[in-house]
Amino acid sequence: MKKRIAVLPGDGIGKEVAKGAVEILQAVGERYNHQFEFSYGMIGGHAIDEKGKPLPEETIQLCKESDAILLGAVGGPKWDQVNPDIRPERGLLQIRKELNLYANLRPTTYFESLAKSSPLKDEVIQGVDLLMVRELTGGLYFGQPSERMDANGESAVVDTLFYKKAEMKRVIEKAFALAEKRRKKVTSIDKANVLESSRMWRETAEEVAKDYPHVYLEHMLVDNAAMQMVTNPKQFDVVVTENMFGDILSDEASVLTGSLGMLPSASLSENGPYLYEPIHGSAPDIAGKNVANPLAMILSAAMMLRESFGLETEANEVERAVKQVLDAGFRTSDIAEFSQQVTSTTEMIAEVKAML
Amino acid sequence: MKKRIAVLPGDGIGKEVAKGAVEILQAVGERYNHQFEFSYGMIGGHAIDEKGKPLPEETIQLCKESDAILLGAVGGPKWDQVNPDIRPERGLLQIRKELNLYANLRPTTYFESLAKSSPLKDEVIQGVDLLMVRELTGGLYFGQPSERMDANGESAVVDTLFYKKAEMKRVIEKAFALAEKRRKKVTSIDKANVLESSRMWRETAEEVAKDYPHVYLEHMLVDNAAMQMVTNPKQFDVVVTENMFGDILSDEASVLTGSLGMLPSASLSENGPYLYEPIHGSAPDIAGKNVANPLAMILSAAMMLRESFGLETEANEVERAVKQVLDAGFRTSDIAEFSQQVTSTTEMIAEVKAML
Ligand SMILES: CC(C)[C@H](C(=O)O)[C@@H](O)C(=O)O
Ligand SMILES: CC(C)[C@H](C(=O)O)[C@@H](O)C(=O)O
Repeated sequence: MKKRIAVLPGDGIGKEVAKGAVEILQAVGERYNHQFEFSYGMIGGHAIDEKGKPLPEETIQLCKESDAILLGAVGGPKWDQVNPDIRPERGLLQIRKELNLYANLRPTTYFESLAKSSPLKDEVIQGVDLLMVRELTGGLYFGQPSERMDANGESAVVDTLFYKKAEMKRVIEKAFALAEKRRKKVTSIDKANVLESSRMWRETAEEVAKDYPHVYLEHMLVDNAAMQMVTNPKQFDVVVTENMFGDILSDEASVLTGSLGMLPSASLSENGPYLYEPIHGSAPDIAGKNVANPLAMILSAAMMLRESFGLETEANEVERAVKQVLDAGFRTSDIAEFSQQVTSTTEMIAEVKAML
Repeated sequence: MKKRIAVLPGDGIGKEVAKGAVEILQAVGERYNHQFEFSYGMIGGHAIDEKGKPLPEETIQLCKESDAILLGAVGGPKWDQVNPDIRPERGLLQIRKELNLYANLRPTTYFESLAKSSPLKDEVIQGVDLLMVRELTGGLYFGQPSERMDANGESAVVDTLFYKKAEMKRVIEKAFALAEKRRKKVTSIDKANVLESSRMWRETAEEVAKDYPHVYLEHMLVDNAAMQMVTNPKQFDVVVTENMFGDILSDEASVLTGSLGMLPSASLSENGPYLYEPIHGSAPDIAGKNVANPLAMILSAAMMLRESFGLETEANEVERAVKQVLDAGFRTSDIAEFSQQVTSTTEMIAEVKAML
């Protein structure tokens, strides 16, 4: 198999972890006889410094010509004072829109060997295995108007939560399709007792459910979901929600099992390419020190092998290697316990490669 | 002191717990020589059944003529299919708007004797003492338009996040004033990297901070806040945010210490009356069984004594009595451990009264 992969390392630890994913993919390619071609593009603060904007045209072009995209992380204090229209995060929002990446998938999984770093009691998180599906190109993030205004002589402001029903439908359908291959339960989250958009969301979920008779659909209000995520995360299989609720709840979900530095994500479009990135940020405080945890990025590459290239065996291999490295006791500083020896970023990458 | 108190028991366990608060207030009144006059009003499903709407004019009138309001809880499956415009929750939203209850205060406190029922590890929650201040009369909850529409022939929907700067200012000021009497830290939560309304919110917080030189202001993005709430809730003193973020985060905060059935709330307006209610809902599944936990409602009455009537000693007395009852081992079923004997609602009320 021959595939072109766009690599956008971005800022902070993004570069270090992206390097790890590339090395692992190269090793997988050699072993299984695939040709992965890597091309590099700029995004985020790095792109602002070099090109004056967070998502240069060349990068968009490169992504569109690739079969899949690996993204490190963007942002850092250096660009915090920059005009909001060209801030690093703007590059993220723009790439989502340009490539129509409407469904963001974030698994939260329990790693037994990391349970000690979880803030939750072990009986609460043991066996958690949930997949958050977040709508990524609509809602408050992109609705117009989003501006200051004058309301009868008083200073005021408005943002707009806008959705087409078709935008709701495609992401909810994606959630059902994913649930069908898992434990067959979809929890759809909304605020139907307050928002008209949530009432349309709920109706749409009911309609989609008719096409998936083997999947159980349940509705949950967003405030209740924020509670249930902490008190009983095991109840969830696939969770689907709109953009802003998804931003909040998926970050909440990501800290439950104590393995934030371990969690990958995928953003899917209708016709590809898909984008893969770790959930963690650019962590400017530890950048360049060879201490970042590369596993979330490596697991994102595994998701790429599976979702974009259909390489199930290869994806499983990478995931198994990561698990084995953890079981063998290797820990970057974010997941190390008090007395444990700490492994550097490059060592961790080498260990995973050795286990392949 | 003579005070008129409006009591709106509402639905489900609302009636049972409201009765408890009234009994405790009567006991406090006798002991300290205050005259508390109680008048009853309808709200929620009960009001829909009797009057065809969730907040009848008589109730609004009663509230406006009172010095403070005690609310039990509203809602239940019986009214779930009712037209959204007259659903029980609509009564809540309407009373907030009618009485201009712009600031919702929700303390989350750690009760040592209840730590076992928390989903979090004890070292994470020990000593948590945070006060959530949520804007309650603006944002997505009330913005117009909120309606279905046609977008170039496609079915679509819009909700509106609207705020006047003055609405932001008054609730942020409230948060600073409260922080000044506590640990002097305000965490202001927004999504300033995406929303224009959040950028105005952040600026307003900076402006208000200038008038409170002894209070430390920090900004946090809402997604990060959803994580920090779980991983390190002790860092928070006063947290202030807009309506929808506050709905989600305050519910998340409420389950941290395992004492949801214990948590009171207050909703403040500019010139009174204020409204007090427990954070828990109407719990229709256990209604009428004399098993509900009345302590959140009783602690809401304590907040009323303090915030509305300035009766600090009396408020402290009630809070002390509740703590003593817990320390003595009395538990309603929601907070009982496996082997513990369970106390009924009415017994619990009697025990608190006996400790006064
Ligand atoms: C950086 C920010 C704009 C972004 C978002 O809110 O979507 C981030 O929080 C995320 O979840 O990917
Ligand atoms: C019932 C609902 C409308 C209400 C809200 O969202 O404000 C509730 O969740 C609350 O927090 O008081």
